[in-house]
Amino acid sequence: MIHFDIQPISQAWLTQAQAHQDQLTKPPGSLGFLEEIGVRLAAIQQTLRPALGKGAVVVCAGDHGVTAEAVSAYPSEVTAQMVLNFLAGGAAINQIAEVAGADVWVLDVGVNAPPLAEGGLGVRVRPGTGNILREPAMTRAEAEQAIRAGAEVARRAIAQDATVLAAGDMGIGNTTAASALTAALLGLDAKAVTGRGTGVDDARYQKKVQVVATALRRAQARLGELAQADPLEVLAELGGLEIAAIAGVFLAGAEAGLPLVCDGFPVTAGALLACQIQPDVRDYLFAGHRSVEPGHTRQLEALGLRPILELNLRLGEGTGAVLSFPVLRAAASVMAGMATFSQAGVSQTMEP
Amino acid sequence: MIHFDIQPISQAWLTQAQAHQDQLTKPPGSLGFLEEIGVRLAAIQQTLRPALGKGAVVVCAGDHGVTAEAVSAYPSEVTAQMVLNFLAGGAAINQIAEVAGADVWVLDVGVNAPPLAEGGLGVRVRPGTGNILREPAMTRAEAEQAIRAGAEVARRAIAQDATVLAAGDMGIGNTTAASALTAALLGLDAKAVTGRGTGVDDARYQKKVQVVATALRRAQARLGELAQADPLEVLAELGGLEIAAIAGVFLAGAEAGLPLVCDGFPVTAGALLACQIQPDVRDYLFAGHRSVEPGHTRQLEALGLRPILELNLRLGEGTGAVLSFPVLRAAASVMAGMATFSQAGVSQTMEP
Repeated sequence: MIHFDIQPISQAWLTQAQAHQDQLTKPPGSLGFLEEIGVRLAAIQQTLRPALGKGAVVVCAGDHGVTAEAVSAYPSEVTAQMVLNFLAGGAAINQIAEVAGADVWVLDVGVNAPPLAEGGLGVRVRPGTGNILREPAMTRAEAEQAIRAGAEVARRAIAQDATVLAAGDMGIGNTTAASALTAALLGLDAKAVTGRGTGVDDARYQKKVQVVATALRRAQARLGELAQADPLEVLAELGGLEIAAIAGVFLAGAEAGLPLVCDGFPVTAGALLACQIQPDVRDYLFAGHRSVEPGHTRQLEALGLRPILELNLRLGEGTGAVLSFPVLRAAASVMAGMATFSQAGVSQTMEP
Repeated sequence: MIHFDIQPISQAWLTQAQAHQDQLTKPPGSLGFLEEIGVRLAAIQQTLRPALGKGAVVVCAGDHGVTAEAVSAYPSEVTAQMVLNFLAGGAAINQIAEVAGADVWVLDVGVNAPPLAEGGLGVRVRPGTGNILREPAMTRAEAEQAIRAGAEVARRAIAQDATVLAAGDMGIGNTTAASALTAALLGLDAKAVTGRGTGVDDARYQKKVQVVATALRRAQARLGELAQADPLEVLAELGGLEIAAIAGVFLAGAEAGLPLVCDGFPVTAGALLACQIQPDVRDYLFAGHRSVEPGHTRQLEALGLRPILELNLRLGEGTGAVLSFPVLRAAASVMAGMATFSQAGVSQTMEP
């Protein structure tokens, strides 16, 4: 049984924070989206002076049996190779986390490879998912185990002073699983949510849409109308292990009352899942960026999240989420540090 | 005579940097706009391992005689009040600069108030511009003096280890001057470039468009076709003093070979001016954000700049420019620190 103790944020704090925002020495609304972010951070932290210190990103890695269907431009060995690259500090997420003031936690929750070098957190539930074209991604027990593994790493990151939490993903084939999961959870068809991932050609893209559509039919035959089904059963049918772990990161992060930041398509699939399991997670979520994957926009619409950055990223690893940390920090800092009109002796009135 | 020794960036460095970018452990293009930024930073710094340390923002302040026409929602006293707020650390730019790793330099190049408290750099060319509806904003000699004042502060910031330079603006009424200047430099009409600034109502907005149109006709009567005129003469006719100083910041920054970051509408008017004075400035420019002012989009199109952030900011002070510094730093860091495919032993080939 998956259950986290998550409190919704309070309307009273939102109202009080907005009133404070409007007294700061700038024309009301002139900091645009930054003001809305600051107000929500204040409500999450229950203070008019929110502050974000160090951040953390939990990069969850897993393999996908569906790569047997040639849905990706890269061989599945790349998942394990990239986990080693994360641990060695050579990947994009390492560089971006350094600049953005975030620790990188790497969780191998289902890589299909010999045990990896030390430094990662290995809670390998199984060596990759089943091929969702033909069989369930995992059992329900495995899905719950993967969620708990993500939650556990989130708690460790928070214990080591993380004040804002992102999740990242690594898994060759995982945009296929994310497409299937997103279509299922939102009641959309395969074509509406399936994109080109890290860059497949036309033929492979058509194949990918077919694979997703077939996986959805298979799951529906077992569970009935997928948008009405138990989200944990949908997860078990369609995967992936790292997406389950990402849901766990967000569930545990919301339980701890931290602001949570979505990355691209697979990570936001995990966020969607977390919100379907416990809807109050949504109060803590921010969208770090909008990826070029078309399904990501559908996810953000469903969650009602406006992306902070729009830089045409499509890498994953948590890169877009972590890159938004400085914007979140600035939004907090504006709330916490700016003078009010009366403090600074700045005129607030219109000319006569 | 205004002249700076500015070298264009080299195509050879751009090509070499792009080739390096494509060898890093990510699908080519998967970091989107970040890759383009990184390549240009490498070419600017003439290294495959670009690095951005501390930044600086020069906030240039000046008053506008055209406020007599009631074109702003705030009284002109606010310019001086906000300069004091910058110096006291209570403004939005102070908070954002702290988070983004930037020093704040405040240049009073034309505030209409008694001498301000120490801490600012007072090179007050004159106490505000003339009312551009009826008279030139300043003389050509004053325009050159204001440009030199901005250049001088930029050089001081660079001498104190700034590695990336933004300009900011403060001046009640300055979106009116920026509208007139932008229309003149780009050969557009008043309506195409005039927006609501920090928030005027409908009646005041219509008045503002009329004021800009009249100022343009007045300037054209003196200089002929404005888009063909000497940009320094156009500046002297339409102002403002802080926009002149901002052009000076960018001219001196380009001479020093630093990446330069535009903020919103008045600052980008200064950038446009700098580029018309010496076109090679363009090679060093980045657009920190896109403001909600409609004329800002016209400026960015004319300069061929894609904005890094789109957060509906309309405050000025350099806030949107400085908020983009962490993205620039991340783009540099990705180029400098990521492993290549061969270094990390990551497969680069397609599946068979």
